[in-house]
Amino acid sequence: MILSKSLAKFIKSLQLKKQRKKEGLFIVEGEKSVNELLSSDFKVKFLVGLSDYVKELGSTDFDVYETNSTILDSIGTFKSSDKVIAVAEIKFDMELSFLKEEIILALDDINDPGNLGTIIRLADWYGITSILATPETADLYNPKVISATKGSFTRVNVHYVELVETLKTLEKPIYGAMMEGQNLHQVKFSKSGVIVMGNEANGISPQIERLITHKITIPKYGAAESLNVAMATGIILDNVKRN
Amino acid sequence: MILSKSLAKFIKSLQLKKQRKKEGLFIVEGEKSVNELLSSDFKVKFLVGLSDYVKELGSTDFDVYETNSTILDSIGTFKSSDKVIAVAEIKFDMELSFLKEEIILALDDINDPGNLGTIIRLADWYGITSILATPETADLYNPKVISATKGSFTRVNVHYVELVETLKTLEKPIYGAMMEGQNLHQVKFSKSGVIVMGNEANGISPQIERLITHKITIPKYGAAESLNVAMATGIILDNVKRN
Repeated sequence: MILSKSLAKFIKSLQLKKQRKKEGLFIVEGEKSVNELLSSDFKVKFLVGLSDYVKELGSTDFDVYETNSTILDSIGTFKSSDKVIAVAEIKFDMELSFLKEEIILALDDINDPGNLGTIIRLADWYGITSILATPETADLYNPKVISATKGSFTRVNVHYVELVETLKTLEKPIYGAMMEGQNLHQVKFSKSGVIVMGNEANGISPQIERLITHKITIPKYGAAESLNVAMATGIILDNVKRN
Repeated sequence: MILSKSLAKFIKSLQLKKQRKKEGLFIVEGEKSVNELLSSDFKVKFLVGLSDYVKELGSTDFDVYETNSTILDSIGTFKSSDKVIAVAEIKFDMELSFLKEEIILALDDINDPGNLGTIIRLADWYGITSILATPETADLYNPKVISATKGSFTRVNVHYVELVETLKTLEKPIYGAMMEGQNLHQVKFSKSGVIVMGNEANGISPQIERLITHKITIPKYGAAESLNVAMATGIILDNVKRN
């Protein structure tokens, strides 16, 4: 099918959180991410692609529109939108349920979409499937987040919750990445626990800090003032799994 | 002093590598990075700042220009250039010399400026002071690289070398981050060695791969296809130091 101007406009409008929430839809850009989307349990609403992408697609249970790269680039957020943009349904109100033995990530106001996306990709690498996030954390369905996950958004569930209340109900050790904690290399992580990562500028908030049972710190051997929060998450998860 | 239009244009021109090489100068943007620059052994040529920054600066052995934020933003590469931009001298032809016991990073065509900057910041965190890089690696003096180092460019030396030749002369174990190597968590790192990180898309080149004495791999516990090269560098350096 041919893409109408009004549908192109509609897709573009999904770059805004308000519009995503109203429509219950989000966009996924680029061949690699869309392929991950297609083999996931997300429900695809429709897809817009270049003719060579569309030809290879075969039959689908959703509408497929063909367009040229100029229009595709104008709809998407990438400088070059690759070959395809898909629109899929947001998963609202996913049930919160955890395994008996599970490492959970908790994000206390991670603001930067790139950081959130990178953290989701890391979680997927380290086999973590549940992330708890404060409502102030960047929106999972922001195109920048989806893009930075490199397809991992299909395998990691991000639950936006009142983090203080939720942490209180979990009977697990709560590890928090802080400036002054135990040397990460000496921490013996439990097989079941929560790792809390704090805001880029302000770290973990005082209400959450009160619930931390183990403060941990990445040891520094040189002079850099800090590490980026996504980097810190990667280094901590590697230590958790190495234990 | 008041900033002339021609000097503003000159500063802007230093965003280009060709121009930086010709003039032997580079730009440092933002209060934090400039403060690190001022307390380093880099020679500052001149500085352009907002009046409140300039007032607090005290006496200097370089020229100081005052300007407003509109002009400062138009000169710099940041959306908002903060309060100050400094111009300093590039260090050409730094002598290659290593300690008897030292971990050295080697970069085989890291193309992305953000990745290079992040790697320099990580090296600084983990106490690594020497990086070897192929000539095809992103330019250290690219404003995006300088900015991403968060001031760590003042403490970490990046040497652009013919990497194959240089690695041959070093009598150290050479560890390479590869897809199929020994599990990183089981590697016993030597106190003295080289860690090679490869290109974002193509990994370590065949000529360099031949020189690798220990292939290492970050173990994966989930399903993400890969990790970003800067992330991988951070996780590997943490394991090297933890040994």
